[in-house]
Amino acid sequence: MSEAVSTLEGWFALHDFRSVDWTAWTSAPEAERQEALEELHAFMRKWSDVEAGKQGSSTIFTVVGHKADIAFMHLRPTLEELEAVEAEFNKTLFAMYTIQNYSYVSVVELSSYISQAENPEEDPAIQVRLKPALPKTKHVCFYPMNKKREGNDNWYMLSMEERRGMMRSHGMIGRSYAGRVTQIITGSVGFDDWEWGVTLFADDPIVFKKLVYEMRFDEASARFGEFGTFIVGNRMTEERLAEYFSV
Amino acid sequence: MSEAVSTLEGWFALHDFRSVDWTAWTSAPEAERQEALEELHAFMRKWSDVEAGKQGSSTIFTVVGHKADIAFMHLRPTLEELEAVEAEFNKTLFAMYTIQNYSYVSVVELSSYISQAENPEEDPAIQVRLKPALPKTKHVCFYPMNKKREGNDNWYMLSMEERRGMMRSHGMIGRSYAGRVTQIITGSVGFDDWEWGVTLFADDPIVFKKLVYEMRFDEASARFGEFGTFIVGNRMTEERLAEYFSV
Amino acid sequence: MSEAVSTLEGWFALHDFRSVDWTAWTSAPEAERQEALEELHAFMRKWSDVEAGKQGSSTIFTVVGHKADIAFMHLRPTLEELEAVEAEFNKTLFAMYTIQNYSYVSVVELSSYISQAENPEEDPAIQVRLKPALPKTKHVCFYPMNKKREGNDNWYMLSMEERRGMMRSHGMIGRSYAGRVTQIITGSVGFDDWEWGVTLFADDPIVFKKLVYEMRFDEASARFGEFGTFIVGNRMTEERLAEYFSV
Amino acid sequence: MSEAVSTLEGWFALHDFRSVDWTAWTSAPEAERQEALEELHAFMRKWSDVEAGKQGSSTIFTVVGHKADIAFMHLRPTLEELEAVEAEFNKTLFAMYTIQNYSYVSVVELSSYISQAENPEEDPAIQVRLKPALPKTKHVCFYPMNKKREGNDNWYMLSMEERRGMMRSHGMIGRSYAGRVTQIITGSVGFDDWEWGVTLFADDPIVFKKLVYEMRFDEASARFGEFGTFIVGNRMTEERLAEYFSV
Amino acid sequence: MSEAVSTLEGWFALHDFRSVDWTAWTSAPEAERQEALEELHAFMRKWSDVEAGKQGSSTIFTVVGHKADIAFMHLRPTLEELEAVEAEFNKTLFAMYTIQNYSYVSVVELSSYISQAENPEEDPAIQVRLKPALPKTKHVCFYPMNKKREGNDNWYMLSMEERRGMMRSHGMIGRSYAGRVTQIITGSVGFDDWEWGVTLFADDPIVFKKLVYEMRFDEASARFGEFGTFIVGNRMTEERLAEYFSV
Repeated sequence: MSEAVSTLEGWFALHDFRSVDWTAWTSAPEAERQEALEELHAFMRKWSDVEAGKQGSSTIFTVVGHKADIAFMHLRPTLEELEAVEAEFNKTLFAMYTIQNYSYVSVVELSSYISQAENPEEDPAIQVRLKPALPKTKHVCFYPMNKKREGNDNWYMLSMEERRGMMRSHGMIGRSYAGRVTQIITGSVGFDDWEWGVTLFADDPIVFKKLVYEMRFDEASARFGEFGTFIVGNRMTEERLAEYFSV
Repeated sequence: MSEAVSTLEGWFALHDFRSVDWTAWTSAPEAERQEALEELHAFMRKWSDVEAGKQGSSTIFTVVGHKADIAFMHLRPTLEELEAVEAEFNKTLFAMYTIQNYSYVSVVELSSYISQAENPEEDPAIQVRLKPALPKTKHVCFYPMNKKREGNDNWYMLSMEERRGMMRSHGMIGRSYAGRVTQIITGSVGFDDWEWGVTLFADDPIVFKKLVYEMRFDEASARFGEFGTFIVGNRMTEERLAEYFSV
Repeated sequence: MSEAVSTLEGWFALHDFRSVDWTAWTSAPEAERQEALEELHAFMRKWSDVEAGKQGSSTIFTVVGHKADIAFMHLRPTLEELEAVEAEFNKTLFAMYTIQNYSYVSVVELSSYISQAENPEEDPAIQVRLKPALPKTKHVCFYPMNKKREGNDNWYMLSMEERRGMMRSHGMIGRSYAGRVTQIITGSVGFDDWEWGVTLFADDPIVFKKLVYEMRFDEASARFGEFGTFIVGNRMTEERLAEYFSV
Repeated sequence: MSEAVSTLEGWFALHDFRSVDWTAWTSAPEAERQEALEELHAFMRKWSDVEAGKQGSSTIFTVVGHKADIAFMHLRPTLEELEAVEAEFNKTLFAMYTIQNYSYVSVVELSSYISQAENPEEDPAIQVRLKPALPKTKHVCFYPMNKKREGNDNWYMLSMEERRGMMRSHGMIGRSYAGRVTQIITGSVGFDDWEWGVTLFADDPIVFKKLVYEMRFDEASARFGEFGTFIVGNRMTEERLAEYFSV
Repeated sequence: MSEAVSTLEGWFALHDFRSVDWTAWTSAPEAERQEALEELHAFMRKWSDVEAGKQGSSTIFTVVGHKADIAFMHLRPTLEELEAVEAEFNKTLFAMYTIQNYSYVSVVELSSYISQAENPEEDPAIQVRLKPALPKTKHVCFYPMNKKREGNDNWYMLSMEERRGMMRSHGMIGRSYAGRVTQIITGSVGFDDWEWGVTLFADDPIVFKKLVYEMRFDEASARFGEFGTFIVGNRMTEERLAEYFSV
């Protein structure tokens, strides 16, 4: 048996991907569309208050391509609060014009491969990473991933030292992108179909490509990374909302 | 040919995952919604009586994310009774507002890797594990799994001794979580698409992640575990029902 | 090139899995439901006559879980007759309340691994196995399967002797279940997406699990078996029909 | 780099698989059904003229099971003509009662593994194989396939001599079925998701099974064959049309 | 860790694949169909202006088979502009008759395996390849692909020299097709589910097959190429539009 790495967990995360039913939307009476957008505006303000009160964080982004049109990422202290956010949204008039295509359930995670916190509960730098405010960058990228367990490429059969060495090299690539991209790792073992979700935030979307591609040549990804769907989008602001949905 | 392990079987299990058609639900007349919820309340009370009479056990939980909104787990003595529970529900008004996305058919199973019961039919400790009352914890986690049969990682080609050693180590991790999580293993060979279903019950959902992740470094999982979809939820009580479905 | 085993073929088989549209069914006028059930009763009597005349065999079973609600298994002398059975059913009022989720096209097959018939056309024991009346057991289990062709685990690269040895061991497990389960093997190479369909019939569904699980430790399955979806159900009788569909 | 085999290409092929919406069909007014069938009859006569004029070939067959109800195979000199045939059909009243479930785009192909034509453009035997009239057999079987590229089983890393040897052995099995089955190979590299489509024509459908199963023991298939979905059907004639669709 | 190759990125790309709802289209009033086609004509003229102004490029093609009926490929300087093109189209009357089946998000990419530009920003030959006008050929072929990471066939564990050697050989095949086919490589690491999209343009569609098949024998593809869906189509011109959609 290989030694398991210890992890710290913070806020729970729900990524919620929706397609807009454009036929229904463009056919709806203008007053109904306005009412629906008002609901969405009200949610955005409410979520802003939650963030100001350090009780969670939420962001909205539009998605290019067929996988979704609009996506939400919510961080909240408990699974029950995530359920409440999702259920409340599902009952809105706006939600009736959307179809939920995909979602991801996970929890903000820090692993102790590189440094081990002594008293994480009292370390403010750790706490802010476990309960982060989502960055307000122009672009967002999400993908789920596993560590491979195939023949000789079995991450979970490696020694702690081997894994730590590879994660250190991996982390160094990440650090070389400091200031250009922010990465939030959420663990989903026991919660969803992959082991982790990765959410990247940047003002220049080419940085997503450069970072993920450079990492792919690193042994931790080259031999051991398995990747799910990749979704890229543009952050939705209150200002952009009217234009995106105007008919 | 490798020696097969012997197993004991108890109650049959049906996991039944449903999405709510929120557009239809929020558009329905309030009286119809009330009637539908009354049906669900009546089922919950009926299932409670079944459990009190030791004729089975049922639990309901809400699911975060797109895989489902509401899920049922039913244990019953026979496949015919499971069919009857499902068919009765399908004909309700409430069911008309749901879509059955996924399900799992299996049977509570105890394997003899660790200890072999002498007269299991007369051993009350064994009987209560084969015909359990589902725990009333705040959270539920479900996933199906296989033992791998790929190249050198072929569980079914191992000797009984090798398998027993790995299952013992696996069991020890499980025991270190005693009191924090309850695990019900259901066998589905011949019944559904994976070999086992695993249902975990805990008050703290982080325990699901800790347990499954720690086990992944254990050879039984690292080399031989294949996992299907993971679904996590919050137990639905009669009290919570009204709020969850209130429009 | 490895020596191919010779096979005998009997009646063609269609497994036809359907979900009931319960919303439409419960919303339909009672008279229409009665008319639809009458059609189904009429089919059952007609199929009974076909069986009595040794021109085929049909059975109906209900399925637990989301994969289907009601399933048909038809054996007929020709593909054209199978098509006619399916097309005739598709045009009924009852069929309008169902959705065909899955099906399987194959032909009853006997392989010569164990014993070779001299004049199979004149051997009544062989003929009754090629043109069987489907057992009237309480439960039915269906799954499709392949023999693996991966790296060193390539069934089709083995010698006839190696394959015969493994099939013999496999058959011995099967024989130890004689009287408790009946197995019908149908070949689907050239007809459907897997190489064989396996249909098991038993009064105690636990026997399906015991048999398939024991076989999984046998080299023929452990190294070479690839399995598709498993579907388990309860035989539908004319008596049960009214209750199952009553609203 | 391995030496690529040269190929000759003939007519483009579209396999077009459709389910009938039986609920809509049986609910339609009889006059509308007659009109729809008239359109289909007219197409069949038109396609017959195309074949008589050596400008292509088309066949219709019914499919047993859920994958489709009715299927078309069209051969035409250009992709533009295939598009026109499909688009024209899509605008008919009859097409409104069908759903296109699957299709396959490819081109009739002869490879030079066995014999190399000197002047294929002037060789009438080659030309008739590149621009064939589809056989009028009672049954049709279609499946797509690849040559595997996995570890040591990588067809495209073999030498021309190794590949030629295996294709020769493969061809000899095919020849032993001469007169009982006709095979049309269509290449789909660059056109669809598999490398080839195989369409078999025979009066006895058991021949499809015998041929494909015997080939599976041949190294070219055993080690290197990867197969997609298999679809089998019964040729639709103008005579059969009325009965198949009569309500 | 293997040395990562450096890349240059140009315009962002959206491939947008749509099925036409032919039942709705043929049932619509002629005036509405004309209005919808007018919108599409207006888009085509607008996209033509964008191309003339060197602010992007767009092309439309029809697709044979069930994967789509009509497809758009858009190149634009930013992800925001791609989103705007897609959103604007989604709100048209014409879009109401289509269903978006598939899409691909990527960015025009040049890799430095073969030659390294000194000052790419000032090199007009590089700039025109990064910001190309899409060719006006009769046919288009699209497929996504990965470089494999499986056991001994792991592209990302190779040295730069090994990869460069294989890409050079690969490029030489491509060059032998110069004048007959134009290839646009778009990188999608971080943006979509495969690592690259390949779009080929040619007047003779057989060239797509010849090129991709010849490359498959090259080690870069034979051992390391993984391919997604292949879609082939015919370029749609303003002239062809009326006929394709005429009822």
